[in-house]
Amino acid sequence: LNLSKYKEALDVEILNLPLHKKPENLYDPISYILGIGGKKIRPLLCLLSCDLYSDDFQKAMPQALAVEIFHNFTLLHDDIMDKAEKRRNKPTVHIKWNEPVAILSGDLMLILAYEQVMKAPAYLQHQFFTLFSQTAKDICEGQQYDMDFEQISQPELSEYIEMIRLKTAVLLGCSLKLGALVGGSNEIDADNLYNFGINTGIAFQIIDDLLDSFGDESSFGKRIGGDILANKKTFLRIVAMQNMDAKKQIEFWDKSANEAEKIAAIKQIYVQQNVLEKAQQSINQYHQKAIENIQNLNLNESSKKILLDFAESLLQRSV
Amino acid sequence: LNLSKYKEALDVEILNLPLHKKPENLYDPISYILGIGGKKIRPLLCLLSCDLYSDDFQKAMPQALAVEIFHNFTLLHDDIMDKAEKRRNKPTVHIKWNEPVAILSGDLMLILAYEQVMKAPAYLQHQFFTLFSQTAKDICEGQQYDMDFEQISQPELSEYIEMIRLKTAVLLGCSLKLGALVGGSNEIDADNLYNFGINTGIAFQIIDDLLDSFGDESSFGKRIGGDILANKKTFLRIVAMQNMDAKKQIEFWDKSANEAEKIAAIKQIYVQQNVLEKAQQSINQYHQKAIENIQNLNLNESSKKILLDFAESLLQRSV
Repeated sequence: LNLSKYKEALDVEILNLPLHKKPENLYDPISYILGIGGKKIRPLLCLLSCDLYSDDFQKAMPQALAVEIFHNFTLLHDDIMDKAEKRRNKPTVHIKWNEPVAILSGDLMLILAYEQVMKAPAYLQHQFFTLFSQTAKDICEGQQYDMDFEQISQPELSEYIEMIRLKTAVLLGCSLKLGALVGGSNEIDADNLYNFGINTGIAFQIIDDLLDSFGDESSFGKRIGGDILANKKTFLRIVAMQNMDAKKQIEFWDKSANEAEKIAAIKQIYVQQNVLEKAQQSINQYHQKAIENIQNLNLNESSKKILLDFAESLLQRSV
Repeated sequence: LNLSKYKEALDVEILNLPLHKKPENLYDPISYILGIGGKKIRPLLCLLSCDLYSDDFQKAMPQALAVEIFHNFTLLHDDIMDKAEKRRNKPTVHIKWNEPVAILSGDLMLILAYEQVMKAPAYLQHQFFTLFSQTAKDICEGQQYDMDFEQISQPELSEYIEMIRLKTAVLLGCSLKLGALVGGSNEIDADNLYNFGINTGIAFQIIDDLLDSFGDESSFGKRIGGDILANKKTFLRIVAMQNMDAKKQIEFWDKSANEAEKIAAIKQIYVQQNVLEKAQQSINQYHQKAIENIQNLNLNESSKKILLDFAESLLQRSV
């Protein structure tokens, strides 16, 4: 699956955004966060999705920029909330500048994202506004649920899935739907692509939970066991704690200050509770739903294969 | 000038906003900040402006809600940036909840404001989106200039006026223009009302600067001399410092820890430099421009008088 033609075109447009403006302390942080990399999955999906229905993927460039700007707005504000000092190995905006600058630049990015998404053919503007606003609200709700879960001892698995749907998956769905509609798809295909994004996004997030505890340090790119040390309410933990004995053991280890011992002990509990199999089952279910979403599309088989390959590549990161 | 019919209708609609939703930590702060009062000048201007061109001011209710929600979003985020603990004598959102909640609820308010402003007749939606986005960007820029001025020793008076135009005045202009257009005004009137808002807003802010140093404590509602103690770059200070001797004296007093002495000394410098007269001159100029904006309107004299009275009432707060 080669996304490089989208990537190259997108990178040019990001550099051409009118961000060399005054006051510099407002605009420079936006150039900075958009410039420090990231996989840019959302805008690439938007352009790919447009390309499947049109002979010109560039038609969806404003929407691709919108989802990329919006995604980076959420990262910028999340980093303040989490007091994160690094993002992609660079200092976060509130560290490099300060917190007021980070709040305000983020606010402006939300406005700039709206402006881009509305650079659409007139007949799509109302629908795009509604979809983008709903997506943005969903993501705020997802972020709040995620923060609330830090306080709740034991969210239900269904609540957790709903949280990751809101926080992560809807923006993938929105990116695909915007691109498809600009490209000229019908509503049914656009909705199937939206749901493909949702199902792929949820599966992706469960894999991320798995890798955080059972991944390979060098390929995962983060230290293994971070979620365990933070007592984070992940898919693994929630499933394991459905067993009362395991729940008691995990709550015992929550207070442990011996990091290596704690990680090893909790991973062992996860293994004993068959959490890896249950996670893999769930991943397979969402992946299967995503495949069905694609099979329903009014596209030829080679186009469908591109999307199936994309889901495959996103979900193949194995433990 | 009686705005109570608009006020009553507005208060009902604010209470009816769909904010009793989950997650509560996201929506409750929005109800809270919208519920703790304030003069609601912007939404009332929006409804009044609509009423002048229409037989149903309620048509502009979504736009009135939009500017009120937007204004409170800026207050919420500004309070975090300023580390303010009180707003209208109540704890600020980041104090009553916490900072992550305040950032995220504010973000959601910006989205909710967009949603309201777009509840407009289809033929106005594109124009409203553009006007509202431009206004929102202006306000972010104004807030950043205001923060930057804390670092710059001596901004030009023209830079200061541009800052208050962006930070304060454009939202008054936007409120009036949105209301007028919903009410059915032509573009020329809508633009004159926008400029009326700008000119009135700038005059209002200069008066605010005057009152902060020379007002009556009980009627101003804040402690007199706050700007002086904070070495804030106000209209008064910038004008006074155009004189080199006064500049040196003010810079000497900037470091003083004796609050009463500092306030008295700097007020005396302002008086010696005729700053009050210069401020009053500037206020009169902007007020005069605002009056001209009204006289250009395609409205009958009694309607014009309502707007002139409004400007009068806003600007009559004397020193």
